Amino acid sequence: MPSTRLRSVLWTNNGLQLIDQRKLPAELVLLQCHSVDDVTRAIADMAVRGAPAIGAAGAFGLALGANAFVATHKAHGAGAIADLLHAVDEAKATIDAARPTAVNLTWATDRVVQALRLKAQSEAPGTVDDLAAYVLTVAQALAEEDVAINKRLSEFGAAIVPSGSNILHHCNTGALATVDIGTAIGVIYECHAQGKSIHVWVDETRPRLQGARLSAWELMREQVPMHLIADNAAGLLMLTGKVDVVLFGADRVAANGDVVNKIGTYKLAVVAHENNVPVYACVPTSTVDLSFLEGSTIPIEERSAEEVACVQGVRIAPEGCPVFNPAFDMTPNRYLTGIITEEGVCYPPFEQSLAQAVAAAEKRRAEA
Amino acid sequence: MPSTRLRSVLWTNNGLQLIDQRKLPAELVLLQCHSVDDVTRAIADMAVRGAPAIGAAGAFGLALGANAFVATHKAHGAGAIADLLHAVDEAKATIDAARPTAVNLTWATDRVVQALRLKAQSEAPGTVDDLAAYVLTVAQALAEEDVAINKRLSEFGAAIVPSGSNILHHCNTGALATVDIGTAIGVIYECHAQGKSIHVWVDETRPRLQGARLSAWELMREQVPMHLIADNAAGLLMLTGKVDVVLFGADRVAANGDVVNKIGTYKLAVVAHENNVPVYACVPTSTVDLSFLEGSTIPIEERSAEEVACVQGVRIAPEGCPVFNPAFDMTPNRYLTGIITEEGVCYPPFEQSLAQAVAAAEKRRAEA
Repeated sequence: MPSTRLRSVLWTNNGLQLIDQRKLPAELVLLQCHSVDDVTRAIADMAVRGAPAIGAAGAFGLALGANAFVATHKAHGAGAIADLLHAVDEAKATIDAARPTAVNLTWATDRVVQALRLKAQSEAPGTVDDLAAYVLTVAQALAEEDVAINKRLSEFGAAIVPSGSNILHHCNTGALATVDIGTAIGVIYECHAQGKSIHVWVDETRPRLQGARLSAWELMREQVPMHLIADNAAGLLMLTGKVDVVLFGADRVAANGDVVNKIGTYKLAVVAHENNVPVYACVPTSTVDLSFLEGSTIPIEERSAEEVACVQGVRIAPEGCPVFNPAFDMTPNRYLTGIITEEGVCYPPFEQSLAQAVAAAEKRRAEA
Repeated sequence: MPSTRLRSVLWTNNGLQLIDQRKLPAELVLLQCHSVDDVTRAIADMAVRGAPAIGAAGAFGLALGANAFVATHKAHGAGAIADLLHAVDEAKATIDAARPTAVNLTWATDRVVQALRLKAQSEAPGTVDDLAAYVLTVAQALAEEDVAINKRLSEFGAAIVPSGSNILHHCNTGALATVDIGTAIGVIYECHAQGKSIHVWVDETRPRLQGARLSAWELMREQVPMHLIADNAAGLLMLTGKVDVVLFGADRVAANGDVVNKIGTYKLAVVAHENNVPVYACVPTSTVDLSFLEGSTIPIEERSAEEVACVQGVRIAPEGCPVFNPAFDMTPNRYLTGIITEEGVCYPPFEQSLAQAVAAAEKRRAEA
């Protein structure tokens, strides 16, 4: 990976810096977040999006919350520590509510809060200032861990993509969707870095056009051969033998391997399955939510009518036109060839393989 | 059908009047065509679109060509008639080349040219002026026939849609896509007119958004209950049991029932089939091209990169982004429950049922 790539989620002396993904590809704008509200708004409005990226942003948001507490509360001692914990809990509740479907957000903020509690209850919790600084340390470690996880995931993924492959990709799962590198696009970058001859069909990904706006922009910058397509064109490509593998990310994966991902993933996976094209979801194990045995009960976020009725501010539908706009759909596990994680590629039965991958990741984390 | 509806293709004292479908839904603009070139440009640029509508527009285009010949050539007699036939042949070649996939265009211009030749070779061909006037008469009869065909087709279709149905519709097949009424949307209008309780999920139909711009506009005007969706949302709706039937039109149907229609139809049909949702193509028999035994060899028009990279003039993809933009795809007959024509609903095996429908339509025409 070129080290010149800008990180989508970066802590700076000036707070949390995000690439404002709403402005791409026309402009590369950096957004500075100075408060919990700034971060919450950035997540809800999708200035930052992509499950791993919003997880990291949420974690840094708690650091901003802890810092704000320190700046406004001058008391010290056990009472102040309890107040800090309470303030961080409140910040977590605010941030978690910004997007309900991506499990990585609550996964990341849970990890920060748990680490903070452990530290606060330890024999040497330090001062309130120390604990606030610790929140930032945990968030930074989590962001670095995301990069390392994506690198491992990308290597496992690249191993199953032969040179000469035409890869079809949905939504954006690249450096913009994560702290760096990416998941499904991470696999593509890794293939490209290894010198494999690959070509990517980039689903534009209506309604928010993350493929046209973000994945096309990333892949062009990295000089990966690609063509943008309307999502509707994916079927013809598969029927005429022009797709060798379908790759996408996920916002939440159930224990049985059912995948909740960007709207349109289900249609794509069914048509790939019908054409014997292998389908892989590429996810860090943090995306696996073992509390859901299967996917049909995972909540699906509905977003505004404007996302469909207007494109980049230009109205495409009649005024007052009723719209149904679910942001995600659920792909039953039977349409997936495998799920690529940082602990290896999981194959059916996913109940077993995913549980093993999650356990391996927890073990690795405990040993780190 | 309310008689107040404006016809998309209408002959007036001022030549051929079209609803400029590129301007909808923002503006209702009428386009006047005074020459073969005007009509060719209107078809190629999709000011008029929809297989039956461009067929009728092409037929009226030949009338404009014949009129132009009369206006510029003052000679009379047998030589002049041969020159007229030659001029109309040239006009036909120009118009036919405007869009290669829709069979209705050449079907309609063929019919006009054949009728003109028969008349010219008859015992009383009349003057060149008479023959030019005859071209217009034939075009007008063809347009009226389109309306009558759609009405019959809509009644056959409505009979298989129960009250309470959620109908999913792709592209635009309404009054705008035909001379009046429509094919798949004609079925919807007929259900609505019969007082059936129906609701329509309107696929926006990327890249040109005929669903969002045209079908939504038509259905709202006719007060048919509907919601616009991104094409990507159709899968979730089917998986969750919210679609009872899928209806669309076609640009060309092969002898075996393979359907070439707007890009995205294939994906939709596969996913419907996977969810046991019935799928019907709604077409006049003029869309059936018995010269193609199956669909895979029907030519698929590729259109410009700009249609995907820009939406209503606003750029959504990076500058210079490579794009693949096929306008149509082919749906193999196995994904279709039936094909609704003006001669009844055809069921598998389509080789037989379509041949019977085409023969019945020819018989009806011969008897008319």
